[in-house]
Amino acid sequence: MKYCSVCGNQVRVTIPPGDNRPRHVCDHCGTIHYMNPKVVAGCIAHWQDKVLMCRRAIEPRLGLWTVPAGFMENGETTYQGAIRETLEEANARVEVDDLYVTVNLPHINQVYMLFRGRLLDLDVSPGDESLEVSLLTENQIPWGQMAFPTVSEALKLYFADRARGVFPVHMLDIVRDGSTAGRYQVRRIS
Amino acid sequence: MKYCSVCGNQVRVTIPPGDNRPRHVCDHCGTIHYMNPKVVAGCIAHWQDKVLMCRRAIEPRLGLWTVPAGFMENGETTYQGAIRETLEEANARVEVDDLYVTVNLPHINQVYMLFRGRLLDLDVSPGDESLEVSLLTENQIPWGQMAFPTVSEALKLYFADRARGVFPVHMLDIVRDGSTAGRYQVRRIS
Repeated sequence: MKYCSVCGNQVRVTIPPGDNRPRHVCDHCGTIHYMNPKVVAGCIAHWQDKVLMCRRAIEPRLGLWTVPAGFMENGETTYQGAIRETLEEANARVEVDDLYVTVNLPHINQVYMLFRGRLLDLDVSPGDESLEVSLLTENQIPWGQMAFPTVSEALKLYFADRARGVFPVHMLDIVRDGSTAGRYQVRRIS
Repeated sequence: MKYCSVCGNQVRVTIPPGDNRPRHVCDHCGTIHYMNPKVVAGCIAHWQDKVLMCRRAIEPRLGLWTVPAGFMENGETTYQGAIRETLEEANARVEVDDLYVTVNLPHINQVYMLFRGRLLDLDVSPGDESLEVSLLTENQIPWGQMAFPTVSEALKLYFADRARGVFPVHMLDIVRDGSTAGRYQVRRIS
């Protein structure tokens, strides 16, 4: 951010009075521009022993596998975001069960909120952002070709909980490991 | 938003190619400015049969009661936000138990994530944004002087769950009732 979105003048980074963090501040109109984490809403959509997976048609991670998920929009609830993303990415209709896995990704200012959802029918097909969609059992999932650690960690929890027959709400921290490119530290919070 | 925060030129509202929602778009530099909901992180900090409440020293709802909660910051996790807000608003140290209540507020583009937390000591005092802080039992809480319906609904769930001895994770929708000013519809999702 270089310019004030309210008045168009240049902003500067400074700690406002009464605050304790640097913010983008406009000296011209006085607006303080706060920046906050974004919510990624998604769905583990299941049908019998399978889950709905999408192979990404867009960057980042083009060609790799994920569950339907994307940035929550203004004016919707978290689970409406999950339902919308499942429709957009896999042309699939789900009924959401419950919140299942929340993942904190503080290094990229994101919070994933993944729901479990029951697929309502098998009429699924790739949306604009997917190359391919597929219903996969645990053994069929291409674990070595996953787009995001959030998704692979959530699916590992899902299949373990499925075997036990209980689905508690989990929270994970996933933080980039500074020492090795492309590696992450996963911490189970609950 | 009137001006592009990247290049300072005027933006216009239009649906970008491949999108399905109006966005603020800069025709000069091509930036699409997405707007997304914000996370409010907070804590129901308990000590024996009491919870930590703050009387607000700032608008909105100056003079009314809340639990420590505020906008999650970039670079932190949801529960770190809850711990920070509890320290800032009540100078109180907590150890977070678990995520407890998530509230969708789609009419104001917010998602509350309230944690249960154990107060580590009784050395609490008002922070800059609080007039007064107090440890209150269910009967001592000024239910008619609550700042936000999110907080009163979460506390109702808390005391009911406390009586049962179990704390499942809840999700609520709270939406402004268009027909009556200051009234809200509360829907229990889970």
